[in-house]
Amino acid sequence: MNTKKSDFLLNPEITYLGFGSFGACPKPIFEVYQNFQRELEYEPVQFITRKGLQYLQTSKEALDKYLSCQADDLVFVTNPSYAVNIIAKSLQLKVGDEILTTNLEYGACDKTWQYYCDKAGAKYIKREIQLPIESKESFIANFLQGITPQTKLIFISHITSVTGLRLPIEEICTYAKTLGITTFVDGAHAPGHISVNLRNLNADIYTGACHKWMLAPKGCSFLFVQKEIQNNFDPLVVSWGYHSMMPSDSQFQDYHQMQGTRDFSAFLTIPACVQYMHENNWNEVNTNCRKLSQDNALRFCELLNTSPISPIHDDFMAQMCSIPINCEKPADLQQLLYNHYQIEIPVMTINHNNYIRYSIQIFNDQDDLDRLYNALHKIKESTDMIF
Amino acid sequence: MNTKKSDFLLNPEITYLGFGSFGACPKPIFEVYQNFQRELEYEPVQFITRKGLQYLQTSKEALDKYLSCQADDLVFVTNPSYAVNIIAKSLQLKVGDEILTTNLEYGACDKTWQYYCDKAGAKYIKREIQLPIESKESFIANFLQGITPQTKLIFISHITSVTGLRLPIEEICTYAKTLGITTFVDGAHAPGHISVNLRNLNADIYTGACHKWMLAPKGCSFLFVQKEIQNNFDPLVVSWGYHSMMPSDSQFQDYHQMQGTRDFSAFLTIPACVQYMHENNWNEVNTNCRKLSQDNALRFCELLNTSPISPIHDDFMAQMCSIPINCEKPADLQQLLYNHYQIEIPVMTINHNNYIRYSIQIFNDQDDLDRLYNALHKIKESTDMIF
Repeated sequence: MNTKKSDFLLNPEITYLGFGSFGACPKPIFEVYQNFQRELEYEPVQFITRKGLQYLQTSKEALDKYLSCQADDLVFVTNPSYAVNIIAKSLQLKVGDEILTTNLEYGACDKTWQYYCDKAGAKYIKREIQLPIESKESFIANFLQGITPQTKLIFISHITSVTGLRLPIEEICTYAKTLGITTFVDGAHAPGHISVNLRNLNADIYTGACHKWMLAPKGCSFLFVQKEIQNNFDPLVVSWGYHSMMPSDSQFQDYHQMQGTRDFSAFLTIPACVQYMHENNWNEVNTNCRKLSQDNALRFCELLNTSPISPIHDDFMAQMCSIPINCEKPADLQQLLYNHYQIEIPVMTINHNNYIRYSIQIFNDQDDLDRLYNALHKIKESTDMIF
Repeated sequence: MNTKKSDFLLNPEITYLGFGSFGACPKPIFEVYQNFQRELEYEPVQFITRKGLQYLQTSKEALDKYLSCQADDLVFVTNPSYAVNIIAKSLQLKVGDEILTTNLEYGACDKTWQYYCDKAGAKYIKREIQLPIESKESFIANFLQGITPQTKLIFISHITSVTGLRLPIEEICTYAKTLGITTFVDGAHAPGHISVNLRNLNADIYTGACHKWMLAPKGCSFLFVQKEIQNNFDPLVVSWGYHSMMPSDSQFQDYHQMQGTRDFSAFLTIPACVQYMHENNWNEVNTNCRKLSQDNALRFCELLNTSPISPIHDDFMAQMCSIPINCEKPADLQQLLYNHYQIEIPVMTINHNNYIRYSIQIFNDQDDLDRLYNALHKIKESTDMIF
């Protein structure tokens, strides 16, 4: 077992290649989390109305700094779906408006946009991305052809979910700005995984999960909105902060941060996450994991008689790698890998194609991928599940 | 110190009369909570997509049983404000519609209704409740006079927040039913505090907090909706369950229960809460606490030169008692009681009147109320904060 796996609470018996799904929290961060919960119970009123809010401020400042954004330009939310719902609900879509996106987005976000577009008579335009992606230039050129005079907002993943592809959002956001089109980047898989600098990114709106690659406990994510348009968005849960009796300097904070009694301890762990990544030389970890991920891609494609869905290059691939796989029952294959081989890895479908997606985190090594390779090889030889 | 206080994680140095604000979780329930969190981290994918969902089902069934409602007629939500937002967002209010409520409701709920009424051109009618309440009959007669042909929904607390009054919702819901007016009861303070039987109650919609009087950890509440109208309500966070690819028998469950990645461990603790209440003879605890609360009401009124705001009777008073208090700076008084006397108790304002509200839970005794009495007496004698 990789020594670093003991830093996590993960079952040591399982080859865990499914980090991208729900992350995993290192013990030192998890302890900070549960200690906050105990501190809340020690003095609930003081914590929820005073001390906890100071911790929240400290944690927000740590996240501001980590993501290079200005104070008060992000709020904590439970998950990126929640953030997408905040934005979509308040966007005031009109008949004929278009949201331009790709056909590789996360299904729950697609559902949200489709719901609000249907309500308004607007259109959710899923631009078809031909795989394999050949180059940044071809991707950008194709995607931007989806823009029309009706395009109100571009919604696009920083790293796609099922296909694990890093998309050239910097170029797309910069170009959209010249046209006055609002951009909203779904960075569910990005912070802690690839560099995210909100100042340089030019996205108007960005949501990211901290509970995936930033190692926070579940339920910690954020919504960033450029200051000029922050006041366009109403709270999803209207509560005390709406038309607050004690308003702060930021309506954005007041509207979205306080949403009734809840355990907000997960929001408080960012300083611990940043410290853990710093102490473990996270840039180096990212580089090593990316290399391991990329170095194995072709080998898996060969085994499965498929081809990579992008150039094997940092421009498109980081620590998640989705290999096209020919199988009829992806859920059954995933279950077999878990039950029989003790390998946790998702096998998913998008646009009628199946992918097996391995995620490489600090606790993974070549042995893990070899176990996956051998398992797939055996399944291929001995069953008709993979063809 | 009351022996039962050691069952809680509460600071033993503080006289805790503020239970009604955010509850407090007994250690055995809290351990179950944090163990679920560890179990999630042991196998995140298995927990979030399989095992945790089985626990969720078990917990929901325990809550169904505890509240005497049918299977699938309630979903877990983070807090009652969240539930009110689900309902208000989907109610499809029209110009001229009226929501009838009292002028004693929780401020965050008022804000939510006002927000959606303003959007639709509807009216949020806060029926003025004259205090003291004289009788059930007079309360009901006065409140029902607020009904007009435009009344679309009645929103009313089971137990009010600032004033701690139990309201005769059974009679109001039953009468509203004869008129075909939808009723929505805010039971934030009710379950675990007074008997809540959803089958007998006749409310169309009911929300309650489990993280207050049912002793669950923070972030555990529920929304109950009568089966016939469940499908009127869209999810507040549109996610996988909306037009689910794998629908269950209940659209209500699909729409509202799964809302993206989050730590739903608090939702799983209901069996532990019910067990704790059972093992501690909760009916008897409720009775004793109610008695202690009621027995001290007049004494505090006399000290503060005020009068009770209702008959001192189970019909109106349970384990929270709000005493009118003449003071100019309620927040300062609350802070003084905490800082100088180590007493946690809220001093709050509603309709330009101030109230000090003590909550009596299993860990409180007469000594706690005597400490409060002596502190208020001293403050009254030695400062001009209370007059």
